[in-house]
Amino acid sequence: MRDPRYDILFTPVAIGPVTAKNRFFQVPHCNGMGHAMPLAHAAMREIKAEGGWAVISTEECEIHPSGDLTPYVEARLWDDRDIPALALMCDKVHAHGALAALELSHNGPTASNLYSREVLLAPSHQPSKYGYPSQARAMTKHDIREYRRWHREAAIRGKRAGMDIIYVYAAHDLSLAMHFLQRRRNQRSDEYGGSLENRVRLLREVLEDTKDAVGDTCGVALRFATEELLGPGGVELAEAHDIVGMLAELPDLWDVNVAAWYNDSVPSRFAPEGAQEPFIAFVKKTTSKPVVGVGRFTSPDTMVAQLKRGVLDMIGAARPSIADPFLPRKIEEGRIDDIRECIGCNICVSGDMTISPIRCTQNPTMGEEWRKGWHPERIAPKRSASRVLVVGGGPAGLEAARALGQRGYEVSLAEARRELGGRVTREARLPGLAEWARVRDWRTGQINKMGNVAIYRESMMSAQDVLDFAAEHVVLATGCHWRRDGYGRSNGLGIAGFAGNPRVFTPDDIMDGRLPEGRVVVLDDDGFYLASVIAETLRQHDCDVTYLTADDNIAPWSQHTLDYRHIRMRLAELGIEPIVSHDIVGFTGTTLTLEDVWSGHRRELGCDAIVTITARLPHDALYQDLLLREASWPDAGIRTLRCIGDAEAPGLIAHAVYAGHRYARELEEPVTGEVSFKRHFHSAAPG
Amino acid sequence: MRDPRYDILFTPVAIGPVTAKNRFFQVPHCNGMGHAMPLAHAAMREIKAEGGWAVISTEECEIHPSGDLTPYVEARLWDDRDIPALALMCDKVHAHGALAALELSHNGPTASNLYSREVLLAPSHQPSKYGYPSQARAMTKHDIREYRRWHREAAIRGKRAGMDIIYVYAAHDLSLAMHFLQRRRNQRSDEYGGSLENRVRLLREVLEDTKDAVGDTCGVALRFATEELLGPGGVELAEAHDIVGMLAELPDLWDVNVAAWYNDSVPSRFAPEGAQEPFIAFVKKTTSKPVVGVGRFTSPDTMVAQLKRGVLDMIGAARPSIADPFLPRKIEEGRIDDIRECIGCNICVSGDMTISPIRCTQNPTMGEEWRKGWHPERIAPKRSASRVLVVGGGPAGLEAARALGQRGYEVSLAEARRELGGRVTREARLPGLAEWARVRDWRTGQINKMGNVAIYRESMMSAQDVLDFAAEHVVLATGCHWRRDGYGRSNGLGIAGFAGNPRVFTPDDIMDGRLPEGRVVVLDDDGFYLASVIAETLRQHDCDVTYLTADDNIAPWSQHTLDYRHIRMRLAELGIEPIVSHDIVGFTGTTLTLEDVWSGHRRELGCDAIVTITARLPHDALYQDLLLREASWPDAGIRTLRCIGDAEAPGLIAHAVYAGHRYARELEEPVTGEVSFKRHFHSAAPG
Repeated sequence: MRDPRYDILFTPVAIGPVTAKNRFFQVPHCNGMGHAMPLAHAAMREIKAEGGWAVISTEECEIHPSGDLTPYVEARLWDDRDIPALALMCDKVHAHGALAALELSHNGPTASNLYSREVLLAPSHQPSKYGYPSQARAMTKHDIREYRRWHREAAIRGKRAGMDIIYVYAAHDLSLAMHFLQRRRNQRSDEYGGSLENRVRLLREVLEDTKDAVGDTCGVALRFATEELLGPGGVELAEAHDIVGMLAELPDLWDVNVAAWYNDSVPSRFAPEGAQEPFIAFVKKTTSKPVVGVGRFTSPDTMVAQLKRGVLDMIGAARPSIADPFLPRKIEEGRIDDIRECIGCNICVSGDMTISPIRCTQNPTMGEEWRKGWHPERIAPKRSASRVLVVGGGPAGLEAARALGQRGYEVSLAEARRELGGRVTREARLPGLAEWARVRDWRTGQINKMGNVAIYRESMMSAQDVLDFAAEHVVLATGCHWRRDGYGRSNGLGIAGFAGNPRVFTPDDIMDGRLPEGRVVVLDDDGFYLASVIAETLRQHDCDVTYLTADDNIAPWSQHTLDYRHIRMRLAELGIEPIVSHDIVGFTGTTLTLEDVWSGHRRELGCDAIVTITARLPHDALYQDLLLREASWPDAGIRTLRCIGDAEAPGLIAHAVYAGHRYARELEEPVTGEVSFKRHFHSAAPG
Repeated sequence: MRDPRYDILFTPVAIGPVTAKNRFFQVPHCNGMGHAMPLAHAAMREIKAEGGWAVISTEECEIHPSGDLTPYVEARLWDDRDIPALALMCDKVHAHGALAALELSHNGPTASNLYSREVLLAPSHQPSKYGYPSQARAMTKHDIREYRRWHREAAIRGKRAGMDIIYVYAAHDLSLAMHFLQRRRNQRSDEYGGSLENRVRLLREVLEDTKDAVGDTCGVALRFATEELLGPGGVELAEAHDIVGMLAELPDLWDVNVAAWYNDSVPSRFAPEGAQEPFIAFVKKTTSKPVVGVGRFTSPDTMVAQLKRGVLDMIGAARPSIADPFLPRKIEEGRIDDIRECIGCNICVSGDMTISPIRCTQNPTMGEEWRKGWHPERIAPKRSASRVLVVGGGPAGLEAARALGQRGYEVSLAEARRELGGRVTREARLPGLAEWARVRDWRTGQINKMGNVAIYRESMMSAQDVLDFAAEHVVLATGCHWRRDGYGRSNGLGIAGFAGNPRVFTPDDIMDGRLPEGRVVVLDDDGFYLASVIAETLRQHDCDVTYLTADDNIAPWSQHTLDYRHIRMRLAELGIEPIVSHDIVGFTGTTLTLEDVWSGHRRELGCDAIVTITARLPHDALYQDLLLREASWPDAGIRTLRCIGDAEAPGLIAHAVYAGHRYARELEEPVTGEVSFKRHFHSAAPG
């Protein structure tokens, strides 16, 4: 079945004393479940092992209470009581012939200790990284010895849990072994500071400790950042060359990337597949040990090229393994078309950032493996011969139709427009978002293989049409539109001067190709990606763009997807100046009256048009019509009617796909109680 | 023992079918432990019951997965499996003769559903409140019936858990019963929208439902916000008068306050004791039911006045009950001087905000009741006749000396300055921070009653002095100073032009009375309260002040203490304009060169002086000297030497007090393992 071109991807690799069965390596990634939800975490990792990845890693794992990452939920090995949760994962991963890897970390000044209340540690006295109002103290020699002991003991605990690979972590600006390398964090005057040899000393010692402690049966990996893009205060490529040279043969595997996280997991809007190559390609030339790296690889041809060109020995992946846990197996089985490619939207990252279980736009089963029993490839067969009418071919409708089709239902999908994909198609045309169209393309590709799903384009449905269609189940996924009246978080009574004003545009206008000219104010009351994309669109259209928000910062939610810094830099490159903390209190003619939300001072701003991005309203007219005609349903044979996705409550594409998938999963299935998923409970018994 | 003036505070009050034994009412408050740490939560509530509060409330309690507050950890009653955690609290509270109260809430569009992945609910379609990229959908009549059912079932579960009082929640802009009142959230055209009567309908129904469901044995309380300070989009006082009139006799108790949380729990810097009176005094005139309200009341005289003047029937407290869980009992026992008064710093709030257990500057045992077995009033007696020398009379040294004295140790405290309190005394002189001196005053007051603690002022200690003193245990709490070189989060290699420049000032200069003149730039790389306080000080000193930060927003961490909005408004009132997203790349003469951190564009700014607030360095010279002379310790009789508080790692006053307390608790006690506290574990067994 497998294309022989891809054979190289399925050759084994030795990692010290253990052997990876193929070249697919799920590198460590956060997931918002960690030690708080061990069963959910283990089930998520297991699915990837089942999907063919040779190595399955944890997220970073705390080794001591003085490196407590609260509120973020990662792995934890503070003492022996933490072993069972990780043993659970190891057992599940081993059941599928994969290796389990553990990423040990003490985060030093990048920890919080909000839960443990211990004092933070660092190479030298310094503020904690993330704004916590406390400083880390300079570690004494005794502290360094203790840190090494904690790391060694955690490695042994990892081995006892069943881990095959133990990581030493020196990446992402997130671990002491890296902090000692950095001039900005290390001002020590002893043998651990100053010269590069001294700054590398601790990393070398911890690698040696780990090999000594567990190297007999475990591979020892080093996750290492070759560049921080921070200038001489941080790790720089030239110095990284020397470091790799100094440590070349010490680890059993090099896992290399660019720091910090926002430079590693760059959204597709800002970086293509394989973007890290210029920063990591040197490593394989310097060591004989296997090298793994990431690049949001979803194309097997690109993967093969990475191996053949000598860039990497193993294809590292976090996001592609989230979007498609079965990626390796699909390549192995010659089912390239079935690969559900990551779109690089980084909604997965937001789980960790918001301390909630990881989710994925492309893979709605992500995070639901244990609690809902959802599998990314399997679904329960249909319960009956019922027919289902899906109205709307956007992300919710397409996913509902696809998953219902997979269940075996006879499905008809009616889309009002000629093109499928709804908002996905429209947004994917905006600058930088082209890969988002994969949400549509994977689903239409799957549907096209099904004999039981019919798609009708240019088929606007009225209530009468729906009744006449006479399907047992009707689901409406008719989308939504952006409001034009200014109503939103900042203006609960709307904005004076907006209603009926032809100079007020919405994102729908822009996506429909109706662009304003001249001086345009983009009003962002949404706070995520869209306003900056619209601003970029208008700038490309030669508009003079001002980015305005009543919030004190632009696009705050984009911090959670690692877009934020890239958005700021893009806007700066485009010469788009933000005006923050200002509300609009009037718009007449070509003058906007702004009010400083703190001082109340008013000022005027000349502009030719406004694009208002505040809130959306569902397209639910058809739903309301059908509800009014509920009495006619029995005669029409309609048993259930549902409204899902943006047509129910506007949200992200991820929400829409999830809604479509959930609808399909639950159709004709027994109703659960108020809580439709399994939960972890915390001991309420004295212990 | 009790002063008869305070007798009125100890008279019982009927709350529907239950009776509170006195007038002290711990109103609902978040604590960062909630459903995630039920044993820790119950122990914290129990201590307050032991301390004499007649009513002990939970925090807000989620009633359904569609009102999931993740990442925030509150109480939860989604189904019967959540009852045991709350029953635990009820049992503990009842053991001390107090009533347990449960605050039920469905947060509608102010929930997140990040964990449950349900669709958010609201009166009308609208964005979720906190920036989550999803909207809440307009509730149908069916949804409203379901919501009422969930609320009723949760009330019954609360009763089964042992709750004596069930709250209906319509405050803080955090619950559907309130959201239906608000014009900005409720644009319904049915009988639940439009007129006030219609907007009040749901609140009335839920009150009636709750009385019907549990009113036979439980008191039904209404927590109600009388004003949101948002104009006609929100609840306004005039309308609140009408609402209270409409519902006057329906609840068994009114708990009234101002919304949102930042207007309710205002930091002491921005509001004095009893500040809510103008907004809530009308309620008691409108209903015959008991009224409780808050005002950070710590003075029994003020409390009595509130009752006698007919403002309140019961003294509500969150923060004062955190700072001193034994406040009622101390009044009852005539120990007014022993009351540990809340300083209004709101570090307690930051626990909820950062999803970590609540802590308190004044009460270092807060949050440690279960996991460390710490009690705010009791401490283990000394283990030996050892003498302890405490060097430094700031918050860490004073608390160490006090708690060691309480244990019975013979303690000597040496303070270099004439005045005690260290940074507390110095910061408390800055505008708005006067109440922070209570940290010093309570401790010196307690110490002054002890015969075994001697304080030596103006006693700078050298290493030789310490050796000569010949105490078995020496603890150094010598504080820290602000750096002058610009080193900090934003500038890991310092700032060019700062070192040795007489125009560069630090907060220490300001607190020592050395103030600059003219055009002053306050450089905030700290991100919390201090820069704004310094800016205010300088403005009062007639300086022309610019607030500069390389961050994209000012004082971001002050969001966690509810200071943020008040700081913004105060700065606006003072005419202090912030410059954000700019780093300093040079300072020569009277010109500052700024660089936009995103565009790299440079600009110049004339200024006469800079106050640099970036990072601190411990005063650890004495510690280092003593470490060098470790060989001399045995002869001097010194067995242990420790460095604590800001002298170990600069942090908050809360950290310093905690460090002093912990030192005293742990002195000569058996050493625990790596993890010095009990933990909750999450089931790793399939269940």
